[in-house]
Parts: sequence; structure tokens; C-alpha cells
Amino acid sequence: MAVQATVPLSSREDLALAYTPGVARVCEAIAAEPDLAREYTWTGHTVAVVTDGSAVLGLGNIGPRAAMPVMEGKAVLFKQFGGVDAVPICLDTQDTDEIIRIVTTLAPSFGGINLEDISAPRCFEIERRLDEALPIPVFHDDQHGTAIVVLAALRNAATVLNRKVEELRIVISGAGAAGVAVARMLLAGGATDVTTVDSRGVIHSGRSDLNPEKASLALVTNPRRITGSIADALRGADVLVGVSGGTIDESALAGMAPGGAIFALANPTPEVHPSIAARYAAVVATGRSDYPNQINNVLAFPGIFRGALSSNAPRITDAMKVAAADAIASVVADSVTAEAIVPSALDPRVAPAVASAVALAATTG
Amino acid sequence: MAVQATVPLSSREDLALAYTPGVARVCEAIAAEPDLAREYTWTGHTVAVVTDGSAVLGLGNIGPRAAMPVMEGKAVLFKQFGGVDAVPICLDTQDTDEIIRIVTTLAPSFGGINLEDISAPRCFEIERRLDEALPIPVFHDDQHGTAIVVLAALRNAATVLNRKVEELRIVISGAGAAGVAVARMLLAGGATDVTTVDSRGVIHSGRSDLNPEKASLALVTNPRRITGSIADALRGADVLVGVSGGTIDESALAGMAPGGAIFALANPTPEVHPSIAARYAAVVATGRSDYPNQINNVLAFPGIFRGALSSNAPRITDAMKVAAADAIASVVADSVTAEAIVPSALDPRVAPAVASAVALAATTG
Repeated sequence: MAVQATVPLSSREDLALAYTPGVARVCEAIAAEPDLAREYTWTGHTVAVVTDGSAVLGLGNIGPRAAMPVMEGKAVLFKQFGGVDAVPICLDTQDTDEIIRIVTTLAPSFGGINLEDISAPRCFEIERRLDEALPIPVFHDDQHGTAIVVLAALRNAATVLNRKVEELRIVISGAGAAGVAVARMLLAGGATDVTTVDSRGVIHSGRSDLNPEKASLALVTNPRRITGSIADALRGADVLVGVSGGTIDESALAGMAPGGAIFALANPTPEVHPSIAARYAAVVATGRSDYPNQINNVLAFPGIFRGALSSNAPRITDAMKVAAADAIASVVADSVTAEAIVPSALDPRVAPAVASAVALAATTG
Repeated sequence: MAVQATVPLSSREDLALAYTPGVARVCEAIAAEPDLAREYTWTGHTVAVVTDGSAVLGLGNIGPRAAMPVMEGKAVLFKQFGGVDAVPICLDTQDTDEIIRIVTTLAPSFGGINLEDISAPRCFEIERRLDEALPIPVFHDDQHGTAIVVLAALRNAATVLNRKVEELRIVISGAGAAGVAVARMLLAGGATDVTTVDSRGVIHSGRSDLNPEKASLALVTNPRRITGSIADALRGADVLVGVSGGTIDESALAGMAPGGAIFALANPTPEVHPSIAARYAAVVATGRSDYPNQINNVLAFPGIFRGALSSNAPRITDAMKVAAADAIASVVADSVTAEAIVPSALDPRVAPAVASAVALAATTG
């Protein structure tokens, strides 16, 4: 990756304009009217991709230096698909308060903050407090990027299954960053019967071992008051979304209602192998590019930030996220089949469609 | 300015390689051997241009947002002349300890730190402590960039004047970031008789109102124990270097030895107008592009960092700075005249020459 000048700099006049003394007039204008920075500097189209290296891919807590290739890859995708200039920022601290303070202090340099690969439950507090503190969009991609694409996939899966999202019984395996966000996103997108399961079993209000995020989730999920294991949750369920990184026993799948959907999103090893999942579900998706229906965040984040930046949105609201999911689903809605519920990760139509939908949602409330 | 992908990303295979799952192998390699980050990520050719907006150009304390255009311009120059990818980082804090902590935490994201437009005397402590704390080059351009180009100019001016740097009586007006660094650089480059003057007069060991940096400077400058005003310092002096931002009375210049040099570097208004300076000196330089002999930091910083990064130097030593000054002077040494003691700011030969000299000095000690 490289930085590129977008203005020529070949004459003494160019130099006098881009640097001293010409630049002083631009500085003075921004000092008088800070919002002009968005127009006069690259901050209006630039996002920081911020990590502390604590939860990188499936590799875990490998620290800031080893996290850099992921952030750099992400920045390349931001540019390629969204036309957004992204700068990898790998922080050599994993202290929640310090991360919040540092990102707050860096914020004048950027038009948005994409949090990445920060472990749960710290990621929830970091995102929430930054979102409150900063006048620019803050988005934890591991949470919301995944959740948005899952909602898009679920909408098209429902079409294939000839069902309504509202009537589906949905089980989410995993209650880390992605699991919590997927649950909330599906509820925001119309789902009514969502049950989440963590490593200790079904999440319900009766459990005393829940962190605040899970306890809060227990209040809005699990309407049928299920307790027990994932097998208990899956009995009669229509949809399984796996975002746990573990494996799920085939015997648990056997209890699912026939003709449903299984999204096994752990990478590189799905919670359920697609060939096994196909025995119990009519629609199967994974996080991998070598099977049909790849649920890939790249369908969401470039367009989300492009839309948020172009509309000067101060934050990314649930309405913007739902609009993004709708836009992703719409790109393939006319041609949707059980093996094509989401667009290809490389489909160039997706990011512009997402950006437009997000910008519209930002301006209409 | 923009970020640019330097690898193609057009197929599913490209995506699998640049992002998940291919990137995991690169992360694992760096986790095992952190130094590989320099080779496998963009950190090996990337510099953060860090400011707190406290001393921007001649505009003063205009804050981080209004400082961004200067940092962006600087980043463009880094790329154009040094092939170095620079990222503007404008911090929303002016607390010394916090700036040091934040830059330390950001350091894994970059191969070097260029400090910029941070007010004196805070800039001295910030640079010193960061230089001690970090394994990568830290360079406050307002100090050392200016000082290096002044030393280069002085060497060629001495040639024009048919004098030796060692025998020149030199007065520096201004003891902020640039003044202190110029004094030390000229001493490192062979000067023996350097006297500095701040807004209260000549700096000498008898003064009780000196900050630590100036007190330390008093120990190595002013060998003839001058006291009083700038007029006292200039009596019989051969060289005046103005880095004060103020103005200097013509009556004070009248005391200078004939046939010397005046570098009046304040921007946009030199301490002495070049037409007046020419009455009292044989060589006149300014910081402006519309007069001969522009002393411009762009002659130094792109090549300095290019050379430091390419040689994996952990810091920028005095030997590297002197080598940079020599390289700048050498580019025009064969054609030096009173009106061409430094190369043009746009001369494409300069940065490569500086980079080679700095890299050589880094590896030979």
C-alpha cells in the first residue's frame, strides 16, 4: 500500500501552493470554520482502521505488529470497493480507557473510525464510548459488518425458502462481538424469535454468569424462554447462524425444522461442514470463498463508510445498517437461488448500492 | 492525497491472498519474528507526520484540525521527493506526557516519526523522550530539518566567501525549536564561535531566566562571553542566522564584519528584508521561494527518512544529520555562487543524494 499525491507538484508555484506559504490560507480558513477540514483536507474521505491486535482473525491476541497485514488488507479493500482512503493504526496497548482516549485524540485526522479485531467484551465498551464521544462515524466491523451481511443473507434466504423473516425461529451460536451484533441486527431487521447460545449454553435472563452485554441481550432475545444446550435451542429452529469459532454436533442439527438455513461462518473452519449442513437445511452459507454463499464483510464496510462520509453522517445508525443490508440483498434479489443468496465479494455493484442506501438513510433519519 | 493499493485485487484469488484467509500466514510470520513487519507490511516505508497544532507555520497555536493542510502538504512532499509514504496524524491534545504516550502507542504502525509544528520548549522533551523510547527514527523537522539545511548553506557560503566554517563568528537570532537546533548543528558541523540571542538578549551562562534547553546551550555557545543585545552580539560577526520570526534593526547589522552572510529565515516576512541585508553581507538567504537561496526543509526531510528507513536505522544521529548537510551542499558545490548556495527546493538530485549519505552514515556509525 502507498500514499499518493492527488495534486501535481512540479513547479515552484505548485510547491508554494501545496506547502508554504500557500497552505497558510487553508489553515486559517479551517481555524475559523473547523468543518471546512472535511472539504479542504483528505479527512473527508479518510478512515482509520484501528486495532489493538487482541482478536485478529482466528489467530487471537497476536498484538499490533502482527495485526498490521490484516489492517493493510482491509485498507486496500476500502479503497478498491468504496473509494475510501483508509490508514491502518495498530495500537500498542490493550487498555480500554487508553484506547478510547487515544482514538479520541487521533480523531481530527480522520473522517471515520473503523474498529477491527478488538476482543469482546472490551470491543462493546470501546465502540459505545467512542461513538458517544466523537462527531464522526465509529463502526466495529467484526460486529456490524458481519451482522449486516447476515441480515442481507437472511432476507434472501427467506425469499428462497418462501418464508418471512418475522416468522423464522433463529438460533445464533456464539455471543462474542459478532454474535451479539448479529442478534441485535436481525431484531432491528424484523426478526422476532432470536435465541443466542454461548459456550455455557442458551442465554436467558435466569443466568447469573452473563457479562453486561449478554445480560442486556437476554432481555430482548429468547422469547420462548429456552434453557439448556444448543441442541435445546435448535429443536424446531429454522435458522442457525454460527459465529462461535467452535464446532456444532450433527446430532444438535437433527432437531432443526426441515427446509431451513444454516450459516456456518467460522473461518477457516466452519462450525458445521457445508456438506453436513446441507443434510439439515435448504440454504447453506459459510465465510469461505470456496463454497457458495460467502458471507464476507467486504460486502458491507466499504459502502457503509462511503455512504456515511459522503452524507457527513455523524454516526452510523441502525437505520443505516438495515438500509445497507437491504441494498446488499437487493443486488441479487432478482436472481436469488439457494446457492446465490448474497452477491460475490468482488461484485462491483454492491458498494455503490450500499453507499447510496446508507447516505439516503443518513439524511432521512 | 490518497491511499493506493500496490497489489492487484481483481480475482477471488487476489482477495483470498490480500485478505482472509491468505493474510493469516503473514500475521503468523510477524508474530513469530516482529522485524518481518518492516518487509511484509507498509511500515518499512511509512512515516507518521505528527503534530499537536501548537506552533503551525507562522500562525501559532491553531489546533489539530487547522494544522492538517500543512501535514498533508508535508506528506505529499515526503512522497514526491523521498518516495516515503507519510500519514498526517493531528493530535487533539497538547499535553507533553500524553503526546509521548500516544505516539509510543502508535509506533508499531509506522517506520518513523516526523514531529512537526510542536511549540518550544515542549518539542525538545517530546523528541528526546520519544527518541529514547522508540526503536524507530524520531525527527522534529522544525528543529533538525532547518538546522541541516542551514549547515549546508553555511558550508557553501563559506566557499563563496573564501572562509572556513571553523573561523566564522556566527550569531543566531531566536532560541526556539529552530534556533537551538541550528546552534547545535553548526557546532556539530565544525563551527566554533556560535552565539545565540533570544527575545531578552544574548544567551550566556550568567542569565537566570533560561529554560533547561537554553541553559544547556549557554554551556557550549558564546565562547567570547558576550552579554547584552543582538547589536552587541553582531558587532564583528560574520554570519547572522535569523530564525526568530521577529525583525532585526538595520543599525544592529551595521556592526557586522564586512563580506559575511545573512540568512533571514522567518516566513513569510524575513527578519531583515533581502535588499537591506545585501548592504551588510555578501551572501543573503531567506526562507522564501521568490528570492535567491531559499533555505527550505524539503531539501532535507524526504532524503533523511528515505535513508534512515532504507538502512533500518533505529535513530537519526548527529553523524547522519551532518552527512545530510554535506550531501545537500555537494549537489551545487561545483557551481556555487553567492546567489546559489543551496539547490532549488525542486532539484530532483537532492533527496537521493541525501538518502545515500544518510544510509551510509547510519551503517558506518
